[in-house]
Amino acid sequence: MVLAEILLNHGILLSLLCALIGLVFAGLLIRGILAASPGNERMRQIAAAIEEGAKAYLRRQVITISGIAAVIFVLLLVFKDHFLQDGAASIGFLVGAACSLAAGFIGMRIAVLANTRTAQAATRDRHSALKAAFNGGAVTGLLVVGLALLAVGVFYLVAGRIMGSAQAIKSLVGLALGSSLISVFARLGGGIYTKAADVGADLVGKIESNLDEDDPRNPATIADNVGDNVGDCAGMAADVFETYAVSLIGTVLLGSLTLDGNAAAIVFPFVLGGISVIGAIVGILYVNLRQGRPGAILMEAVAASGLVSAVLFWPATKALFPSIAETGIIPPFKTHPPEHLYIAALVGLVMTGVVVLITNYYTSTSFAPVRRIAKASETGHATNIIAGLALGQHATALPVGFIGIAILLSFHFGGLYGIAVAVMSMLSMAGIVISLDAFGPITDNAGGIAVMAELPKEVRAITDELDAVGNTMKAVTKGYAIASAGLAALVLFGSYVEELRSHWAAAAGPFKIEFSLQDPNVVIGLFIGGLLPFIFTAFSMDAVGQAAGAVVEEVRRQLKLKPGILLGTDTPDYGVCVDIVTRAALRKMIVPALLPLVVVVFVAAVLGPIVLGGLLVGTIVTGLFVAIAMTSSGGAWDNAKKYIEEGHYGGKGSPAHQAAVTGDTVGDPYKDTAGPAINPMIKVVNILAILIIPIFLKLWLAQH
Amino acid sequence: MVLAEILLNHGILLSLLCALIGLVFAGLLIRGILAASPGNERMRQIAAAIEEGAKAYLRRQVITISGIAAVIFVLLLVFKDHFLQDGAASIGFLVGAACSLAAGFIGMRIAVLANTRTAQAATRDRHSALKAAFNGGAVTGLLVVGLALLAVGVFYLVAGRIMGSAQAIKSLVGLALGSSLISVFARLGGGIYTKAADVGADLVGKIESNLDEDDPRNPATIADNVGDNVGDCAGMAADVFETYAVSLIGTVLLGSLTLDGNAAAIVFPFVLGGISVIGAIVGILYVNLRQGRPGAILMEAVAASGLVSAVLFWPATKALFPSIAETGIIPPFKTHPPEHLYIAALVGLVMTGVVVLITNYYTSTSFAPVRRIAKASETGHATNIIAGLALGQHATALPVGFIGIAILLSFHFGGLYGIAVAVMSMLSMAGIVISLDAFGPITDNAGGIAVMAELPKEVRAITDELDAVGNTMKAVTKGYAIASAGLAALVLFGSYVEELRSHWAAAAGPFKIEFSLQDPNVVIGLFIGGLLPFIFTAFSMDAVGQAAGAVVEEVRRQLKLKPGILLGTDTPDYGVCVDIVTRAALRKMIVPALLPLVVVVFVAAVLGPIVLGGLLVGTIVTGLFVAIAMTSSGGAWDNAKKYIEEGHYGGKGSPAHQAAVTGDTVGDPYKDTAGPAINPMIKVVNILAILIIPIFLKLWLAQH
Repeated sequence: MVLAEILLNHGILLSLLCALIGLVFAGLLIRGILAASPGNERMRQIAAAIEEGAKAYLRRQVITISGIAAVIFVLLLVFKDHFLQDGAASIGFLVGAACSLAAGFIGMRIAVLANTRTAQAATRDRHSALKAAFNGGAVTGLLVVGLALLAVGVFYLVAGRIMGSAQAIKSLVGLALGSSLISVFARLGGGIYTKAADVGADLVGKIESNLDEDDPRNPATIADNVGDNVGDCAGMAADVFETYAVSLIGTVLLGSLTLDGNAAAIVFPFVLGGISVIGAIVGILYVNLRQGRPGAILMEAVAASGLVSAVLFWPATKALFPSIAETGIIPPFKTHPPEHLYIAALVGLVMTGVVVLITNYYTSTSFAPVRRIAKASETGHATNIIAGLALGQHATALPVGFIGIAILLSFHFGGLYGIAVAVMSMLSMAGIVISLDAFGPITDNAGGIAVMAELPKEVRAITDELDAVGNTMKAVTKGYAIASAGLAALVLFGSYVEELRSHWAAAAGPFKIEFSLQDPNVVIGLFIGGLLPFIFTAFSMDAVGQAAGAVVEEVRRQLKLKPGILLGTDTPDYGVCVDIVTRAALRKMIVPALLPLVVVVFVAAVLGPIVLGGLLVGTIVTGLFVAIAMTSSGGAWDNAKKYIEEGHYGGKGSPAHQAAVTGDTVGDPYKDTAGPAINPMIKVVNILAILIIPIFLKLWLAQH
Repeated sequence: MVLAEILLNHGILLSLLCALIGLVFAGLLIRGILAASPGNERMRQIAAAIEEGAKAYLRRQVITISGIAAVIFVLLLVFKDHFLQDGAASIGFLVGAACSLAAGFIGMRIAVLANTRTAQAATRDRHSALKAAFNGGAVTGLLVVGLALLAVGVFYLVAGRIMGSAQAIKSLVGLALGSSLISVFARLGGGIYTKAADVGADLVGKIESNLDEDDPRNPATIADNVGDNVGDCAGMAADVFETYAVSLIGTVLLGSLTLDGNAAAIVFPFVLGGISVIGAIVGILYVNLRQGRPGAILMEAVAASGLVSAVLFWPATKALFPSIAETGIIPPFKTHPPEHLYIAALVGLVMTGVVVLITNYYTSTSFAPVRRIAKASETGHATNIIAGLALGQHATALPVGFIGIAILLSFHFGGLYGIAVAVMSMLSMAGIVISLDAFGPITDNAGGIAVMAELPKEVRAITDELDAVGNTMKAVTKGYAIASAGLAALVLFGSYVEELRSHWAAAAGPFKIEFSLQDPNVVIGLFIGGLLPFIFTAFSMDAVGQAAGAVVEEVRRQLKLKPGILLGTDTPDYGVCVDIVTRAALRKMIVPALLPLVVVVFVAAVLGPIVLGGLLVGTIVTGLFVAIAMTSSGGAWDNAKKYIEEGHYGGKGSPAHQAAVTGDTVGDPYKDTAGPAINPMIKVVNILAILIIPIFLKLWLAQH
């Protein structure tokens, strides 16, 4: 077959071509955005203030993170003798770090361009506004996916030419670590920023002074809008870039280890990624060409995207694995016909749909769970909180159940490699899914600009409607990100074991370690690993709480000093609040971000490879639950408040509404700081463990 | 050595003698309590109302639970052919269930006798009040421990005489299941009752109508006081009875499996338990004879108790294991001198102290964590909640770290049996630890009676001071209960594997299953098991939230119907509230209590023994974190409120206080319903898994 030969020999190049097509398409979208009117003088001023704050923060964040990355780069160079002669892993680390930063930075730049244009488009009609916001988000979606495919593909091809394919694959782990590390910082820093500003603004604004969201009299309001961009855009883009790159690398790594010598195993994940870029473009066109209810159109776009991918996956799978693929590490290998690997890929696509539907059920105002929280708000703050916390825990059941089914199915049909294929297939949908996610902060900002620029009420009505859709989309994509991260981490754990096995075999003969639950070392590893998400999120929430407290004090100070602010005769000093959260976010992200790294190295050095293996799985297990519970609770609290604001249970200003605002505020760090930051944390832990195997191998061999 | 022979042949009888001494001593304490004055007419009336409500609830609880127990008893009889010829396990089940119910019932009876006498004693002086409350609690402590030792010991001796020691040990698992099952129901039912009443009373009383705690004008106040007895006394007593009995049985089972044929392995855990009864009596005498600051005296009593145990453990260990004990399942066995097993026992005692100190740090007003929550209350409800949630997660780190160290140490010094010895030694302290715990609700009730009977302010000052001490003690003993439950569950998981191994070997030759983390079945098991604590607590919190909502509506109705109630000219109808929570608690405990059982049987039938093994460990891992986080947050919120009420951050009635009341209310179901109910849930899951091995063995063998 011709297709088979082309794919086998040039599949990676072809997928890079798809990535380039995606980037060119993103360029066209950017041109379209720039051509649109950015609105009147006042709107442009506000947008400029938001942009300035966001740029100032990101600049300082880049400096801080670069410093930390430089230290780790030096450490990698120092230890390079232990595991790589040529330092390719260190270079990979730099590439991964740089691309992750770039994805966040560019995504944020586009968002701040799109927000005012969305507000302006909303003065025309709803569909124009939807298109403006969605296309802004789509740029980020295509960018993240395209950049990730390009970075991994080009690095692999270049490094492969220089030092051979096997070495190149190993040094990809450096790239994975670079992108993971940056995204932990970006997610945390951005998450702390956005929620410290949001919570701070709400606490004084809404609760004490009875100001609406985005009221220009609130000194923290610009910081709040900046936060949407640095957290929900830049942080999220870096995070998904990382998940995508790491899953791709994990699949390549596992493919090279379990389908020994079969080149198709390495090409396949790239091809899946390339195909889905085309799927994403179809989905984006769908939104641009179709009129209708925003929520429905967006969901249909995801379905259209998935359908294109599902159809195109089949010829690619059939061509790459023409007869049967043998998978497994120890003979006898299990054999799989192409149908089986195709089913594994379909499992990933279906999981995307399933997770989207489940999260939607638990966080949308249309269903019982959110309405139950709204009802509980009638009896006060405490019952609202109890209901929200309980909802988050309930919401873990279905996703985890389906993850279990996905693992069983994809393992049954393709072994460990089958799980990796399912993960890669799930993540290949990132292009269209991120478009939905990045849509949220853009409409949020557009609403802010509409209020601050005192645009007519109808405009605000449109941006409000889109904002509510954006809220659900944000929650939905978080569920997607976490489920895929959990699966990706399992693939990485598999890679850890295989890497350990191969290094061990090379140094000291057959590897006999079993990660058995009967071994107390494994149980202790599970405990330590299980602990990580708990303290990691505890530190993140502390950071938000404390930084928000500082904002509250500053806002109170300004309102007291200049009573004219509330009367509208005096303007607040927005810059001070921006500055407070900038400094707080950068300072407070360091401890939680470094914590998992320190724990992994400590466990590796003191407790050995078995405890470390237990730790990896322990982090995945509790991390998955904590992340799903936190993001679901947060999304549900937010929309319960919106549901009451629609006029239920007394509507805006009622006691129930006040209770709902409390829930929403508690949910802020849950859903936008602590919860989503667990994703990159889980993966940085797993990647670091893979990377340090060669460093500690001698020590471990000596202990056994 | 004479001691060696005596202990080896009559060690169990001697420990039963110690248990009897403990019960006699408890009888003396009861006589002392009855001899004291129950106070004036009004106090006796109030106490009678509380007693009536508590008895009415427990009577209906007994009926409900007995019905469920009867169904399970029948199921055991139906399936008895599969695993036991003589139905001893079913009889054991009845014995365990009956004793667990009895422990709760008697504990509650004593508490309602002691509360009014404590209030009366407080009219004299602080030390009399401390003694009255503490001795009431001590009766429960001695009763739980004595009853557990007697039930397990007598059943083992009688069954052993009839059908031999090996069969008797196996049928002890039935006794364990009976006690665990009852305690899940008692903990949940009591927990839902107490917190639905408490939250309901607080929401309308404190927040809407500005009434103080225990104000007789609040129609839910009697229900609230009844709740203290049925939840914190009866529920807790059943829970610890279960933990004690199950740990004892687990150690005996593991001893018989891993120290094959060494009778000392079976006698040893009984002897540890017997010795500590003497230690507990010493501690109780210490409190009765020593004057001083209540908090300090109670802590010193625990230390004195532990010291007696530590000293007496050594000759017993040396006598029972004169040379070396061989442990292990597959040769070569590891050998352990008596010093090693003694160290394992000491690890358990030290763990008790460590956990007590850590929980005290995180939940007492004297330290930074609680004060940080108090400070966060200044900026509102939301920051109070965020700070409390973060604290709970932080508070998991140290206990889990020390549990890890305890596992490593005791495993190093005694293998799997060493871990079991550490657990049994830790639980042998239950006699004195429960005395502290049961002290809490008695002082709480005494305070309520003092307010309702309008006793002088000085009396209320004394009961308030004791109540604050009681709060910390309750938090501390919860930490103890969870840590010991986590360790006990690990022992049970070990027993599950060994049971499976021995049944498998008998039926189909050597057992080759590894519970390896590389096996997707194990990972899926970890996910399903990890899920259980999350949904279990979600259902419990829902139950409290909904039942509390019903109370709120009833109280609002009464206050609206009879405006005279708030003016003090009309009396509320307490009975309706008592009735509402009684029905709600009984109805809503069923789903969460049965859920883990259904999941275990489903997994066993559909997914097999490997997934089931993963499930057991998964439940322990997330259960430990969720339980510690919940009880720590709850205790800290409660005391942060108390700290503000002492006059900090604006004191009572300030906005900070209102925020702190919200936190306290959210913490109520956390610390008194959902969190502590995880203990028996973890164990019921593990015991059920052991018990159903023979039922599903054929199916499993067919699948492999």
